[in-house]
Amino acid sequence: MDERTVQQLVGALPEGVVVTDPARTEGYRRDWTRAEDAGRPAAVVRAGCADHVRTALRWASEHRVPVVPRGAGSGLAGGATAVEGCVVVSTERMTAVEIDPANRVAVAEPGALNAAVKEAAAAHGLWYPPDPGSFRISSIGGNVATDAGGICCVKYGVTRDYVLGLDVVLPDGRLVTLGGRTVKDVAGLPLLHLFVGSEGALGIVTEVVLRLVPPQEPAATVVAYFDTPQDAGAAVVRMTARLRPSMLELLDRTTVNAVEDFRPMGLDRAAGALLVAQTDAPGPVRSADVELMADCCRATGAREVLATDDPEEGDAFLEARRAAGPALDARGPMLLEDVCVPVDRLPGVLERIQAVACEFGVEIPVVAHAGDGNLHPVIPYRPEDPNSTRRARGAFDAVMRAAIAAGGTITGEHGVGRAKRAALPEQLGPDVLELSRRIRSAVDPLGIMNPGVLWEAAPEDAAR
Amino acid sequence: MDERTVQQLVGALPEGVVVTDPARTEGYRRDWTRAEDAGRPAAVVRAGCADHVRTALRWASEHRVPVVPRGAGSGLAGGATAVEGCVVVSTERMTAVEIDPANRVAVAEPGALNAAVKEAAAAHGLWYPPDPGSFRISSIGGNVATDAGGICCVKYGVTRDYVLGLDVVLPDGRLVTLGGRTVKDVAGLPLLHLFVGSEGALGIVTEVVLRLVPPQEPAATVVAYFDTPQDAGAAVVRMTARLRPSMLELLDRTTVNAVEDFRPMGLDRAAGALLVAQTDAPGPVRSADVELMADCCRATGAREVLATDDPEEGDAFLEARRAAGPALDARGPMLLEDVCVPVDRLPGVLERIQAVACEFGVEIPVVAHAGDGNLHPVIPYRPEDPNSTRRARGAFDAVMRAAIAAGGTITGEHGVGRAKRAALPEQLGPDVLELSRRIRSAVDPLGIMNPGVLWEAAPEDAAR
Repeated sequence: MDERTVQQLVGALPEGVVVTDPARTEGYRRDWTRAEDAGRPAAVVRAGCADHVRTALRWASEHRVPVVPRGAGSGLAGGATAVEGCVVVSTERMTAVEIDPANRVAVAEPGALNAAVKEAAAAHGLWYPPDPGSFRISSIGGNVATDAGGICCVKYGVTRDYVLGLDVVLPDGRLVTLGGRTVKDVAGLPLLHLFVGSEGALGIVTEVVLRLVPPQEPAATVVAYFDTPQDAGAAVVRMTARLRPSMLELLDRTTVNAVEDFRPMGLDRAAGALLVAQTDAPGPVRSADVELMADCCRATGAREVLATDDPEEGDAFLEARRAAGPALDARGPMLLEDVCVPVDRLPGVLERIQAVACEFGVEIPVVAHAGDGNLHPVIPYRPEDPNSTRRARGAFDAVMRAAIAAGGTITGEHGVGRAKRAALPEQLGPDVLELSRRIRSAVDPLGIMNPGVLWEAAPEDAAR
Repeated sequence: MDERTVQQLVGALPEGVVVTDPARTEGYRRDWTRAEDAGRPAAVVRAGCADHVRTALRWASEHRVPVVPRGAGSGLAGGATAVEGCVVVSTERMTAVEIDPANRVAVAEPGALNAAVKEAAAAHGLWYPPDPGSFRISSIGGNVATDAGGICCVKYGVTRDYVLGLDVVLPDGRLVTLGGRTVKDVAGLPLLHLFVGSEGALGIVTEVVLRLVPPQEPAATVVAYFDTPQDAGAAVVRMTARLRPSMLELLDRTTVNAVEDFRPMGLDRAAGALLVAQTDAPGPVRSADVELMADCCRATGAREVLATDDPEEGDAFLEARRAAGPALDARGPMLLEDVCVPVDRLPGVLERIQAVACEFGVEIPVVAHAGDGNLHPVIPYRPEDPNSTRRARGAFDAVMRAAIAAGGTITGEHGVGRAKRAALPEQLGPDVLELSRRIRSAVDPLGIMNPGVLWEAAPEDAAR
């Protein structure tokens, strides 16, 4: 792109909004996927309002410049990896959150952090449930783009379940409002729901209306150690067929040890797997749930089962679970999986993952939102060693294939982004993929929106 | 269409599947909207399996025949009104329901009634919550097509919240599987969610995977009489900002009297409005909820408040609410509204509806899923009297405009169908409408799927 074109964008927006200095744009090239092949943006628009986003997209459409939307940059699938010569549109400065307590909704700008929405809601005695591992650092816009999940979704659902309205800037710069503060709205095609989880491939969200709920009751916690992840998986299948836990997380032996190394909490380092279950049902149902959860663990061979009604004691185990990500991350470079399978396939897939680890000569610790069948196998590798890298990538692909074979998905909550696009055709098949391409082209005929996410950008994606 | 073309379809399907005898196709011309201008189908395909649907759509694509999908024909917006010379594809014979208790899902064919899914789930100790007024007579396929709501959605959500997977036959006859038995799946564009609520405009659903949950706890009931619907509306606003009822329904004086005429149950005929609230929270929270609900009613001027922990007594009031539809229907022809507004706008919109009634010289009884802000004003009229019809239609439009002005929608759960398509542009605006047209055309380039639903079929909707 020539300098004159970039200067048109600079001139069209207030001073300081457009950044072109490579020293400053460097920080906008990668998300948490840390892609080595990230491109260099021609410009970064640090939008302060929807109008800035509109101006940027009108300019991008006019000059056919690829647009990479960016929230907090905490994505784990390369959805915000810069494309060479692109304009990165960052919403990090759009952080306003307003609570409408009468309608129990939050109205948030896309750059507001998930934690900020939670806090603003809590100040009105309300709760915004979705809690991805990244909730302290990820933005609501990014959560909407990936339909982010988390620990409490086993009972309280994912981001989609809380989105009532979106303002979206379309690729041509028009702003449309989809939905609003109304709880039920079925007028017209459900475009709102097409945009949730669309990974920045259809437009840029500039405002989100989120449903809030009354605060969660204090939870009781059941903790169980098993000899193998499969036994823990069997307990999960048994439990979820009988009750609705508010949390049901699995950590395997390596993960437990990584957590203990990272932050000693007295977990049993010798166990094959740790299951942490919570129920926030009130009154007598809570006690019954605790009994039942403990019974399910014992019935599937738990070597030790602990139960506590003390929220603080329970929170310690929640923190152990939350520490798993950073603890594994601290061990060095890794490929992070996010497969999800029907819950009854959990034991089988856990076994298959161990077989894959043997086959490729790698270690694959697993942490899982087990109640949803959502697994985060982690494949450590040494990027400087081509053999290690090759084996890790082979294992990564084999785990995705195992999930597809089990009737599951390559991604439960992180998205496809650029990191998993090669595996998407196998999951969707040619007809769904072709239909998806047609719909994407209908919304973005020039093919400028986040090219390369979901699938490799192809000439036929852009209108001739 | 010439006879030879129809005979091709007859010959392509097993004997008895295709019906062309006008005496028999007559019964497939209308849904519960009873449209007077319904067209005459050239043929009705009474599909027995997905392959029959595929054959019908391939034939329709080849000959560019309009396709009108039909479930149980209980729609209230004319979504299944036949188009002249169309092929009606009825799924009424596809009624299989299978429960997978380990994964807590139901796998249903589209013709299965909502009640049949509920029963099959209950046989495994599970619950399928969505409960449209029509649940005993409406099919799951139709529920998916309209994203049907009901009484329990105030706490348990709508059809969309339970759809995990769909098999859909596309307009060209290809069958695609979207989602499955996996609880979380964000791989690719969220096409599953584009099809839920798409009113048969994008394809025909041939299988539905539905999430099931543990059975509901017995509910406690609060019943309150008010002088005016506005006072009852104010109680709803107060309540929903503080707790999460499992039912929150409003009946105005005319509706209460219609119910008493239809099935005497000792309701207070003199009250301006009746509010029926339930909470199914267990244990001490239930008692606290009941207190709080009663307090909210008293604080907004209730003339009488009753509370009961007895599920049978509570069920009697639920039955009163369920009788409202048939009771109003029994009074003669009416236009049925389905507007929905942000909950805090409820009192204002209730007042506006009374003003509309005065303005047009009509009576407008109101029954409402008040906790969701979803109102069903009913406008009785005499079809044989042009003046009465004109006034009723004027009031119908004015109520929709009032909902839009309040930041709400023309339809909360019935859909746009053909009955409300004239009002859709005002709600969506030109940009969203144009985007919707582009997406519909991307899925159905020939414009054969349910033409005339959502918006008037136009030549530009069909590829040239």
